[in-house]
Amino acid sequence: MSNKWYIENGNQGDIVLSSRVRLARNLSDYPFPCRLSADAMEAVNQTVRDALADIDGIQLRYIKMADLTANRVISLAERHLISPAFAEIAPGKALLLSDDEAVSIMLCEEDHVRIQSMYAGFAPDEAHAVADKIDDHLDKKVKYAFDERLGYLTQHPTNLGTAMRASVLLHLPALSQNFEISRLAATVSKLGLKISGAFDEGHSAKGDIYRLSNQVTFGISERGAIENLKSITLQLATRERAAREELQQNVNFMDKIHRAYGILTSARMVTSEEMNEMLSYIRLGGIFGVLPVRTETVNELSATLQPATMNADIDENMDAPTRDARRAEIIRKKLEEDSKI
Amino acid sequence: MSNKWYIENGNQGDIVLSSRVRLARNLSDYPFPCRLSADAMEAVNQTVRDALADIDGIQLRYIKMADLTANRVISLAERHLISPAFAEIAPGKALLLSDDEAVSIMLCEEDHVRIQSMYAGFAPDEAHAVADKIDDHLDKKVKYAFDERLGYLTQHPTNLGTAMRASVLLHLPALSQNFEISRLAATVSKLGLKISGAFDEGHSAKGDIYRLSNQVTFGISERGAIENLKSITLQLATRERAAREELQQNVNFMDKIHRAYGILTSARMVTSEEMNEMLSYIRLGGIFGVLPVRTETVNELSATLQPATMNADIDENMDAPTRDARRAEIIRKKLEEDSKI
Repeated sequence: MSNKWYIENGNQGDIVLSSRVRLARNLSDYPFPCRLSADAMEAVNQTVRDALADIDGIQLRYIKMADLTANRVISLAERHLISPAFAEIAPGKALLLSDDEAVSIMLCEEDHVRIQSMYAGFAPDEAHAVADKIDDHLDKKVKYAFDERLGYLTQHPTNLGTAMRASVLLHLPALSQNFEISRLAATVSKLGLKISGAFDEGHSAKGDIYRLSNQVTFGISERGAIENLKSITLQLATRERAAREELQQNVNFMDKIHRAYGILTSARMVTSEEMNEMLSYIRLGGIFGVLPVRTETVNELSATLQPATMNADIDENMDAPTRDARRAEIIRKKLEEDSKI
Repeated sequence: MSNKWYIENGNQGDIVLSSRVRLARNLSDYPFPCRLSADAMEAVNQTVRDALADIDGIQLRYIKMADLTANRVISLAERHLISPAFAEIAPGKALLLSDDEAVSIMLCEEDHVRIQSMYAGFAPDEAHAVADKIDDHLDKKVKYAFDERLGYLTQHPTNLGTAMRASVLLHLPALSQNFEISRLAATVSKLGLKISGAFDEGHSAKGDIYRLSNQVTFGISERGAIENLKSITLQLATRERAAREELQQNVNFMDKIHRAYGILTSARMVTSEEMNEMLSYIRLGGIFGVLPVRTETVNELSATLQPATMNADIDENMDAPTRDARRAEIIRKKLEEDSKI
C-alpha cells in the first residue's frame, strides 16, 4: 500500500496532510440517480467508463461496488476514497479508481459523476488541474446537465454553480489544544469556508485532523474558490505553527508527546481510536525533532490500520481484540524501523 | 542510598519485599511517654542510648527528631523506618538508626522503646533474631515494665503479652487483580493475622503492596507468632504465583505491563502515585522476563523517589511539577541502565 498518494509527506506536510478537489456532474439524458433503476445506473456508469477509457495519463479501474466485500467498501471510505454515503450497499453504484488512488470517481452516488482528485500536502492547484482535466475530457464525450444561469445542475441545490468542493485535510493539534478551533470555525465561515472534524461530525476531531472546505459554489469561479481556500489554509498553518512554538515550551504537552511514543512502542493492544489520538502526538513529536518518527510512517499507519482496511488487507473478519493486537504489533515494528534510521 | 537494606532483592523477592519485627518495650521507672515531660523523655532516650552503645555488631546513630527538617522526618516514614505517628513533630522523640537502616529504634513513640529490625525478602527469623538480640542486651541494662501474667506492659493494651509485631511486605498484583484480597483478609484474620494496604489505610493498596502482620500478642509465644506468619506468608506466595501464571496468559494484563514500561521510559512528568502504580507492573514484567527490569531497580526507585525523600535528598523544597520532572528523568535513566545489562 506504500505507493499510494496518502502515504507521502507533501508540501507543508507538517500541517496539510492532503488536498482534494471534488466535482459533481450529471448527464443531461438521465434523471438524477435517486430516480434511476439499477439498469439505468449501469448504463450511466458504462457511458462514463467508456468516455474516460482513453484519457491521457490516467488509468482507471472500474469497480462495481456490489462486487466488493463489506470490508473493502468500508476501507475505501476509511481512506476517504469514497463518501460514507457511497459505502451503503445499494445496486448500481460503481467506482473508477486510479492505481495510486489519487483519482477516484464515484458513479451514481448523489450525482451521476463525482470526480475526486487528491494530492498529499498542500496542493489544491494540482488536485484541481487533474479534476479539471478529467472534467474537460468527459465534457467532450457526454452531454452534461448544465444551465447558463445555474451552472452545473446537481441533485442537491447547495452544489449548483461550480459544483466543486475543494478541501484540505489539516493536522491542528496545537490549535485544538488551545480550544481555538471553534473560534476559527466562525471566522472561516464568514469567508465562505467550513472547518470540521475530518473523521466525525461531532465536536472533537479524531487525532486533531480537520477538513477545511469551500462552502460556496454559486457566484464564485472555481479558480476564486481555490485561491480562497489556499489563502485561508496558509493563514491557519501560520497560526498553528505559532501555537506549536508555544506548545514546545509546555512541559505537560511535551510529556504527552513522549508518553504517546512510549505507549505505541510498548502496548500489546491498541484500538483504532487510541491509535488516532496517539498518532497525532507522535506526528508532532517527529516534526518537533524530539521523536525518531517520520511523518510518512504516521501517514501510513493512519491509513492502513483502520479497522475495515486491516480486515480487507488480509481478507478476514478479525474480532476487535485480534485486530488490536495485530495493530499494536505493526505499530511497534514500524516505529522500531523509524528509530533505526 | 544503594547500600540500604530495602534496595536488595531478598529471598522470595518476587513476592516478599521485606520482613520486619517490632518489639514494644517500656522502662519500669518511668510513666508511659504520653505522661512524660520533654525532659523526662530525654532522660529515657539517653538511658536507652547509653545501654545500646556497646551492643556487639550494631552501630546506632542517635537522632533527635526535632533536629531534622520536615522533609527528612517524612522521608523516614516514607521508607517505613518510623511510624507515621512518630513523624508528627513533638519534643522528646528520638531515633536510633543503623547505617544500613536495617535497625531503627523509636524512642518515646507510643511506648518508650520500639525496636524495629528489617530485612529484604522473606526473613522473619533473621529480623526476629536481631530484634531479640537488641532486646536481650537492653534487658540486661534497664528494668523493663513486665508483669508475669500480662507480659510486657505497653501503653496500648492490644500490645500486651509479647508486645511483638512481626510482618512482611508483600507484592500481590495478581491477587489484587482478581479481587481476592478481601476474601483472603477474612481468612487470615481468623488465623490471628491481618493483611492491609501498606501505604494507605483505604481499600486499594498503592502499587499492590500489602502488609501481613500478626494481630495476637497475648497467649502466644514470639516463636509461635513468627512461625504462624511464615506459614501464611508462604501460602499467600503460592497463591500469588499461581494467579501470576494465569495472568501471563491474559493479553490485556500483559498489555498493561508493557504500557507501564513504555510510560516510565518515556514520560517527562511522573507523580509518585503514578510511579507506584507503574512500578507494580514493571516489577512483575521483570519477574516474568518480558521486560529488562531488575527487581532491585524497582526497589530503589520506589524507596528513593517518594516526595519527601526526593526533597530531603537534595535538601530543597521542590514544587510538585519540578519533582515530577526530576522523578521522570531519574526513572528513565535507571531503566535505560537496566536495559543495557
